[in-house]
Amino acid sequence: MIDGTRLTKTAIRWGMVGGGRGSQIGYVHRSAAMRDGYFDLRAGAFDLDPERGRAFGVDLGLDPDRCYPDYQAMFAAESARPDGIRCVTIATPNNTHYPITRAALLAGIHVICEKPLTFTTAEALDLQAIARERGLVVGVAYGYSGHQMIEEAARLVADGTLGEIRIVTMQFAHGFHSAPVELDSPATRWRVDPAFAGPSYVLGDLATHPLYLAQVICPDLRIRRLLCTRQSFVASRAPLEDNATVLMEYDGGAVGTLWTSAVNAGSMHGQKVRVTGSKGSVEWWDEHPNQLRLEIQGEAARLLDRGMPYLHAQSLGDDRIGAGHPEGLFEAWANLHSRFAQAIEAHEEGDPARAAHLRYPGIGAGVEGVRWVEHCVRSADAGGVWVDYA
Amino acid sequence: MIDGTRLTKTAIRWGMVGGGRGSQIGYVHRSAAMRDGYFDLRAGAFDLDPERGRAFGVDLGLDPDRCYPDYQAMFAAESARPDGIRCVTIATPNNTHYPITRAALLAGIHVICEKPLTFTTAEALDLQAIARERGLVVGVAYGYSGHQMIEEAARLVADGTLGEIRIVTMQFAHGFHSAPVELDSPATRWRVDPAFAGPSYVLGDLATHPLYLAQVICPDLRIRRLLCTRQSFVASRAPLEDNATVLMEYDGGAVGTLWTSAVNAGSMHGQKVRVTGSKGSVEWWDEHPNQLRLEIQGEAARLLDRGMPYLHAQSLGDDRIGAGHPEGLFEAWANLHSRFAQAIEAHEEGDPARAAHLRYPGIGAGVEGVRWVEHCVRSADAGGVWVDYA
Amino acid sequence: MIDGTRLTKTAIRWGMVGGGRGSQIGYVHRSAAMRDGYFDLRAGAFDLDPERGRAFGVDLGLDPDRCYPDYQAMFAAESARPDGIRCVTIATPNNTHYPITRAALLAGIHVICEKPLTFTTAEALDLQAIARERGLVVGVAYGYSGHQMIEEAARLVADGTLGEIRIVTMQFAHGFHSAPVELDSPATRWRVDPAFAGPSYVLGDLATHPLYLAQVICPDLRIRRLLCTRQSFVASRAPLEDNATVLMEYDGGAVGTLWTSAVNAGSMHGQKVRVTGSKGSVEWWDEHPNQLRLEIQGEAARLLDRGMPYLHAQSLGDDRIGAGHPEGLFEAWANLHSRFAQAIEAHEEGDPARAAHLRYPGIGAGVEGVRWVEHCVRSADAGGVWVDYA
Amino acid sequence: MIDGTRLTKTAIRWGMVGGGRGSQIGYVHRSAAMRDGYFDLRAGAFDLDPERGRAFGVDLGLDPDRCYPDYQAMFAAESARPDGIRCVTIATPNNTHYPITRAALLAGIHVICEKPLTFTTAEALDLQAIARERGLVVGVAYGYSGHQMIEEAARLVADGTLGEIRIVTMQFAHGFHSAPVELDSPATRWRVDPAFAGPSYVLGDLATHPLYLAQVICPDLRIRRLLCTRQSFVASRAPLEDNATVLMEYDGGAVGTLWTSAVNAGSMHGQKVRVTGSKGSVEWWDEHPNQLRLEIQGEAARLLDRGMPYLHAQSLGDDRIGAGHPEGLFEAWANLHSRFAQAIEAHEEGDPARAAHLRYPGIGAGVEGVRWVEHCVRSADAGGVWVDYA
Repeated sequence: MIDGTRLTKTAIRWGMVGGGRGSQIGYVHRSAAMRDGYFDLRAGAFDLDPERGRAFGVDLGLDPDRCYPDYQAMFAAESARPDGIRCVTIATPNNTHYPITRAALLAGIHVICEKPLTFTTAEALDLQAIARERGLVVGVAYGYSGHQMIEEAARLVADGTLGEIRIVTMQFAHGFHSAPVELDSPATRWRVDPAFAGPSYVLGDLATHPLYLAQVICPDLRIRRLLCTRQSFVASRAPLEDNATVLMEYDGGAVGTLWTSAVNAGSMHGQKVRVTGSKGSVEWWDEHPNQLRLEIQGEAARLLDRGMPYLHAQSLGDDRIGAGHPEGLFEAWANLHSRFAQAIEAHEEGDPARAAHLRYPGIGAGVEGVRWVEHCVRSADAGGVWVDYA
Repeated sequence: MIDGTRLTKTAIRWGMVGGGRGSQIGYVHRSAAMRDGYFDLRAGAFDLDPERGRAFGVDLGLDPDRCYPDYQAMFAAESARPDGIRCVTIATPNNTHYPITRAALLAGIHVICEKPLTFTTAEALDLQAIARERGLVVGVAYGYSGHQMIEEAARLVADGTLGEIRIVTMQFAHGFHSAPVELDSPATRWRVDPAFAGPSYVLGDLATHPLYLAQVICPDLRIRRLLCTRQSFVASRAPLEDNATVLMEYDGGAVGTLWTSAVNAGSMHGQKVRVTGSKGSVEWWDEHPNQLRLEIQGEAARLLDRGMPYLHAQSLGDDRIGAGHPEGLFEAWANLHSRFAQAIEAHEEGDPARAAHLRYPGIGAGVEGVRWVEHCVRSADAGGVWVDYA
Repeated sequence: MIDGTRLTKTAIRWGMVGGGRGSQIGYVHRSAAMRDGYFDLRAGAFDLDPERGRAFGVDLGLDPDRCYPDYQAMFAAESARPDGIRCVTIATPNNTHYPITRAALLAGIHVICEKPLTFTTAEALDLQAIARERGLVVGVAYGYSGHQMIEEAARLVADGTLGEIRIVTMQFAHGFHSAPVELDSPATRWRVDPAFAGPSYVLGDLATHPLYLAQVICPDLRIRRLLCTRQSFVASRAPLEDNATVLMEYDGGAVGTLWTSAVNAGSMHGQKVRVTGSKGSVEWWDEHPNQLRLEIQGEAARLLDRGMPYLHAQSLGDDRIGAGHPEGLFEAWANLHSRFAQAIEAHEEGDPARAAHLRYPGIGAGVEGVRWVEHCVRSADAGGVWVDYA
Repeated sequence: MIDGTRLTKTAIRWGMVGGGRGSQIGYVHRSAAMRDGYFDLRAGAFDLDPERGRAFGVDLGLDPDRCYPDYQAMFAAESARPDGIRCVTIATPNNTHYPITRAALLAGIHVICEKPLTFTTAEALDLQAIARERGLVVGVAYGYSGHQMIEEAARLVADGTLGEIRIVTMQFAHGFHSAPVELDSPATRWRVDPAFAGPSYVLGDLATHPLYLAQVICPDLRIRRLLCTRQSFVASRAPLEDNATVLMEYDGGAVGTLWTSAVNAGSMHGQKVRVTGSKGSVEWWDEHPNQLRLEIQGEAARLLDRGMPYLHAQSLGDDRIGAGHPEGLFEAWANLHSRFAQAIEAHEEGDPARAAHLRYPGIGAGVEGVRWVEHCVRSADAGGVWVDYA
C-alpha cells in the first residue's frame, strides 16, 4: 500500500508551463505530482500574461525570480542553474506541445506532457529521438492508466485468466458538446479549431485514452489495419469530428472497436474498456472505477473491488486507503507521477533499465497515440477505408 | 392495461410446424399465442418423426387426426376443412422457413415465422408478393419488439424528446459459444452449418433482433450504406461468423453501429439498443427490460420504470401487472401475438388498413432482415468494404 | 426446464371468487393458473353485481349456468355436480377471505387465496383444522416465492454456502401511497379501512411477502420474539399504518429486520431479501429478479443469472426460457400454480405425503402470516415493545 | 471549483499524534490536510517508540527536534515556541482520544480528532467546555461528510424538494470481521477490546459515520427516543457488539433506522443513507459516491452526477475535477480540512462567527456521537428497550 513513503531518494525539482489561474488541469497536475512528495514545484511559466503568471506562482509559494514570462526564458534560466528544475509539466493547448516539449528536451529537462504529444508522427518521432539521445523521460498524461483496476485487468490478461484475447471494445463517448457550446465557451473553442487542436477533435482528445488503457491491458496486441469514420454532427466543427468509430484488426486475428464522441447526448464520460478472450472478459468503466467486472464464461459474473486481498499483489501495491473506501482519478494520476519520478531518477542515475518494469505512458505511448490518430484521420478522409498500420 | 380481454372477436384457429417435444421455442410460441386466448391450437406437424409428433399433439389436447406427419399434409387437410386453421407458426431450422412459409401462404394460411424468414432477399420478396396478393399476414418472431419499454422508446423519439437522431448503437453479443460447444450440442450444431443456417450465423440469428428494435424505435431511418466485418473465432465455424461488427450510414447523416457475437465470453445476452439524438439518448437492455434509461444532456439521467403513469399512454396499454412487478420476455411475445391476431382478423375481414396502426414485425420486417444480412455478408466477404444499401 | 408438459395427470376443474372485470389481480391469477394447463376454469362468482359477473364469465368462455351470483351459490351447486370444480381461487378484499375460504373447505373444495388468509390467528387455525380434517389444500398467493432465484437462494442456504445464518434483512417498501391517494382511488381505499383490511395495512399487505420469502430461504429459523413500531404518516390512515419496522430475534441467536412502507416516496416496490451467514450473504431484489447477488466474504461478489447451468438443478427445473432472457412475476406465479396443482392431485389421490417435497405457500404459511401480523400489531400498539412469539 | 487556491491567509502550522510508519489513517490525514496547502506539518509524536517516531518524522522532512517522544512533550514544547503548531491531529486508538485532546486544548492547540472523541458524554462535554472557553476548534474525522453529494443531499432537503422528512435509513455494515480476524490481526484486536475501544465496537466505530451524514443532510431532526439491540456473532467479542440495529423516533414524528455491522459477510462497506420525505427520497452510497439517487414520487428516478451544473452552487463549489471524472474519499477529507482550516483561522482572528456557515463536524458532532453511542449501549444492555434521548 501507498502510505506516503517516497520510492525515490529525493523529490524532483519541477516546473510547469501553463496550468495557471483558472486552469483546472493545472491543479490536477500539481495535486498529483505533489501528492506524495515526488515533485517539488520550483518554477513556472504559468500564463501567457507574464504578470498574471508571476502572481500565480508567488501565490503557490515560488520564488518570484523563477516565475517566468515564457517557456523559453524558463528553460534557459533553469538549465543554467545548479538547482534548476529537472522536469517540466506542459499543460497548454495542443498546438504548443511539440515546440515546448522539444525545447525542454533540448535544455536537458524531463517532460510530462498533456496528450496529444504532437500533431504528426514525424514530430513525435523527432521528440522520441531527442529524448533517447539525451536519456530523458517523456511522460504523457493518460491519467486513468495509473488506476489500480487497470493494473488488475492487465494482470488478468497476463496470467491467462481470459484465455486468448479476441475482442477489445473501447469507448470514450460523452455528451457535453451535443450543442455548439464552443460558441459561448472559450475553453471549448480551441478544441474544435484545427489550428490549436490539430487534425482531430475527439479522436485525439478522447479516444487515445481508452486506446492506451487497452494497450496497457493487452500489451501484446499489434494493430494490423484500421478503418475510421468520423462525423461533425455540429456542422460548424468540420473538418474536425465530434463523433467517430474505429475498427481495428490486430496481428493474430483479434479485433477491436472504438467509439468516441462528444455528442453522446446525456452521457457522462462513458469511458469503458472491455477485453474479451476465449475464456472470459474483463470490463472497466471510469464512472465506477473502483469496481472491475470479470466474467468467465459459464460462471457467475464477478465484481472485483479495489483494495481487496484477492487482487494481484501488483495491483494492491497501488492502494492508498483500503478496500471499501472509494478512490478516484486523482489517485490514478498520483500513481503515474510516482512512476514518472522513479523513471526520471533511474535515468538521472544512468540506469534507465531500472525503470523497465514501471508501467507508465512514456514517449512510446505518446508516439503511438499520434500515429493512431493520423491513421484514423487518413482512413476517415478517404471515405472510411481500411489503412494498413505502420 | 391488459386484463385478458381479447381485442379480437374470436380466437384464431391455429397450428404449428415444429416446436414439439423438447423444443423450448415451441413452448414459448404456445405460451405467448395462447396467453390471452388469441390463438386456439387445433393442429400441428410438430416433429420429423410422425409418431412422436402425434403423441405430442395429443398430449396438448389436439384431435389425433389433426396431428400431421408433415406440413404438406397439414396444409392440404386444414385448408380443405371448414374449421381449418387460419394461421400457422413455423418453429423449424432456418433452411425450412422459406418453403414452409410459401406452402402455407399458397394454402391461404397466415404465418408466424421464426427469423430469418429466408436465406435470400429474392426469396423474401417472393413471399411478400404472395402474401400481398392473397391478403395474408406474415408475422416474424422478433419477440422483444413487443416490450412496453421499446414502445416507450419509440414514443420518446416520435415526440422529439431526443431531438434529431444522430447515433444508433445496437448490440446482441453473448458468450455462450465461446468454445466449440456445437461439437457436443446438436441444438447448436445446425446454427453453424450453412446448409441449415444460411449465409450467416450471428448476423442472422442475433443481430437482426436489435436491428429490428432500432427500426421500431427510429422508423424514419433509412440505411444508405453499410460495412461489415465478420470473424470465426472458433475456426471450424468458417465461413459462418461467430462475431461481427456493422457500421451503417443513414440518409440524412445519422450513423449506426452494431456488434453481434456468440463469443463475447462471460456475457449473458447483452442485447442493448441506445439511440442518441441532438438533445438526449435512450437506452434499453434486455437483461433489465423493465427499466429504460433516458438521458437528456444537461439533466440528471432518468430511470423510467415499466407501468408508471409518466409513460406514454400507448406504452402503458401493454401493461399487464402494474408498476413495480417485473415482466419478462413472455409478456413481450404475448403482446406481439395480440397484434398478430388483430392484424389477421383485419385481413380476414377484408380491412387490412385497420391494422395499420399496429406495431408488429410483419413481412416487411422479415424482408428487411434478410436484405440486411445479405448486404452484411457481401461487405464482409469483400474484405469489409462499404456497400450501398438497396 | 418447463416446456408446458403438465406434471399432473389431468387439469384441475377450477373456479374463482372475485377477479372479474377490471380486476388486474384476477387476470394475474388466471394467467398463472392456466399458463401450462394445470387449471381449467369452469365456474365463477366474479362480481358483487351478478349480471356483470355472469357477462364476464361468459366472455371467458364459461357456461352461463356456472357463472354464479355469489360464492355460496357456487359452492353449493358445484359441490353437487359430478364435474364440479375441485379448487377455487379467492381474489376478494381481505375481510372476506376467512368466510369464503371456510365455506369452500366445508364444501370440499381446495382453495387458493390471496393473503392475508384471515384477520386473526384463531380464524387461520380454524381453517387449518378444517383443511387437515378434510384433506384439502389451501394455497396462499405469495407469488414471488415461486421464482427460480428464490429457490436458488434457499439451496445456497441449505448446502451451507453461507455458513451459519446470522442476519436476515427484509424489505417491501414502496412509495405509491406517499400522498392520501385513497381519497381518489377506490382500489386503494379499502386497504386503509380496518373494516375491510383488518388490523394492519402494510404489515399484512406487503410485509408478509418478504417475510415468507425469508422463510422459504431459511426454513430453520424460528422467531423467538419480535418488536414492531408502526406509523401513519398520512394521518387519516390511523390506526392503520403506512410504515412499519419489525425487529426479530430467532432461536439460536440470529436476528432479523423488516421494513415495510407505502410512503417510501419515489421507490418502486423495493422488495428485497438479504440473508447473511457466517461465510457470506445472498441478496434478491424483485425489480431485477433474474439476478441473485452472492457475496462470499473475501471473494469478489458474484451475480448469478437465472437459467445458468451453475445454478442448483432444483432451481433450473423451474426455468422456462433459457438463460439471458428475462422472466418476471408471471412465471413465478405459474410455478406456484404447478405446485398447487400437484399438491391437490396428491391430496385427491389420498397420498398427501407425495406433495411433501413441493415448496409452496400452504395453509401453514397462511397461518404464520396472520400470526406474525398479530404479534406485530400487539407490539406496536403497546408502544413498540418486545413480545414473545408463540 | 477548487483549484488549489487557499481560502485562508496562511497555512496552519500543524502536528500529529500517532499516524506513523505503517498507519494508513495517518497517511490519509496528511494527504487530506496538505492537499491544498491548508496545513503545514511541523511537528509530530508519531509513534509509541520514540526512535521510530523520530525517524518517520525526519523522512517526512520535519526538523528532528520537533519529532517528539510523546504528546505531552510535544504540546509543552510547541506551545512555548513562537512558531509552534496551531493545530494537532490525533490518530491514535480510541482510549487515548480524550486525554490527548484535553491536553492539546489546555495547551491552546486546535484539534482534529478521530472518532469517537471520548468514551463518555461527560468527557465529551468537558472537552466542549474547554474548547469553548479557550476559543479553540475541535474537528472530528467524519470524512465522508465533506463529499459534494452529501452537500447536495442536504440542499435538496433544505430547499423542500423531498417535502417533509419522514424516514431516515442509515447503514454502515461491512463483512470484513465475519470471522475472528482479530486473533491474527493486531490492527483489529484493539477495536474489540473495551479497554481500548470503549463501550462499543461497531456502534462507535462505524455507525456514527452514517449517523452524522444524516445529521448533515437533515439538520432539523432531533432524536426523541431510541432503541438498540446489539449482538456479538463472534462470541469472543462480547460484550462488544459486531452487529447492531437502532430505531429512532424524532421530534415531530419522523423515524430512523440504522444498521451497523462488521459481520455483514461479503459486503464491502455498505455505507448508505436514504432520506425519505413526503414527496421524494434521496439516497447516497459510499461505494459509488459520485452518484446521488433522487426519487420523486410519480417521476422517474434520477441519477445526479457529481460536478454537473444542475447541482446546487454550494455543492459545486467543492468540485475539483469536473463532471465525469470520479472523486473519492480523499477529496471529501480534503474538503473537510479546508473548512477546518477556515474555522481555525476565524477563531484565531477572534471572529468565530465567520465560520458559522461552514458545514464541518466540530465539537458538537463529537459530543453528539458519544452521546448517541452511550444511549444505544444503555438501551441494548437493558434488553433492547426504548430510552429517552437527552
